[in-house]
Amino acid sequence: MPRIVAVPHISLPEGIPGIASGFAFRPETAKPMRELAEVLLRGANTLTSAEREMIATLVSARNGCHFCQASHRAAAAHHLGGNYAIVDAVKQDFKTAPVSPKLKALLAIAAKVQESGTHVTGADVEAARAAGATDTEIHDAVLIAAAFSMFNRYVDGLATFTPRDEASYDQMGQRMARDGYVRRDANATHHSS
Amino acid sequence: MPRIVAVPHISLPEGIPGIASGFAFRPETAKPMRELAEVLLRGANTLTSAEREMIATLVSARNGCHFCQASHRAAAAHHLGGNYAIVDAVKQDFKTAPVSPKLKALLAIAAKVQESGTHVTGADVEAARAAGATDTEIHDAVLIAAAFSMFNRYVDGLATFTPRDEASYDQMGQRMARDGYVRRDANATHHSS
Repeated sequence: MPRIVAVPHISLPEGIPGIASGFAFRPETAKPMRELAEVLLRGANTLTSAEREMIATLVSARNGCHFCQASHRAAAAHHLGGNYAIVDAVKQDFKTAPVSPKLKALLAIAAKVQESGTHVTGADVEAARAAGATDTEIHDAVLIAAAFSMFNRYVDGLATFTPRDEASYDQMGQRMARDGYVRRDANATHHSS
Repeated sequence: MPRIVAVPHISLPEGIPGIASGFAFRPETAKPMRELAEVLLRGANTLTSAEREMIATLVSARNGCHFCQASHRAAAAHHLGGNYAIVDAVKQDFKTAPVSPKLKALLAIAAKVQESGTHVTGADVEAARAAGATDTEIHDAVLIAAAFSMFNRYVDGLATFTPRDEASYDQMGQRMARDGYVRRDANATHHSS
């Protein structure tokens, strides 16, 4: 029987899944993209990394990017002690998910940004502020949604290799939650496991 | 008579137009975003900066981001000695614009990425290759389109201040073409004009 194998659009290094293959192909652009992900998802913030990873997951799911939504879903779950149920509830319908009213309002803004920045209204922003969101939290919700509109298009626009088994993403998400997005310097003191 | 003034969604520094106000509000995220723009649009490349700025302009126009399309349109024109006609032809219909077959094929890929990364087909990529595009040029066309899908959403999702006069953008584009996107260090030897 013929075996259908999806092949990337360009000669990406083999055996590396998703965005990491684009990063390996072009280290010059990988550096700022990794740094942006690190600051947005793991930098000092009044939003938890779990909350920020859930915004990234929602946007990636709505952009139909399997690699990004599966890996960030797993990262969010690992930030919550392995609780995939909350993350899946956000993906399915964030309005009824068991998350704070503030996060719901930020997810609503992110969902607008996923469509277009011009869709965000003053009312969306007022609702977030009424739920306790600060200007920086609103800024970061907008930028996380915008950044994943980039990462998702990059991953799928190159047709990068996309694993289909859940176990790969569970391991990936665990590493992302633990080690983050900036490649460790070979000379840095770092315990690899 | 009431005067309608567009107000940004959050308290951005006043008197700074477009993306620069978001950068001033949050320097931590500005740094990698500026670096990404610099590498993509001005770094060493077999595509000219004019070609790359035209890809950025097309994507920004299709995303309906007035600030980005007007400023990058001007930057592209200044890289071409002030020739706005070529840039406008690309914006209106790149298939008939007076640019190379290779750039047309890369613009076609960028236009697909603007919609969704999943819309890029093997046939789109083969057409670019047949017109002489390298893998790195295809990669960069995908990533420029993806990155402007971020920059556009960031600018409009915050409702940043958008000048409406052409002269502002002409000056902005001249500076972008000359000085680039990375903020100069205060201690660096640099002639400001």
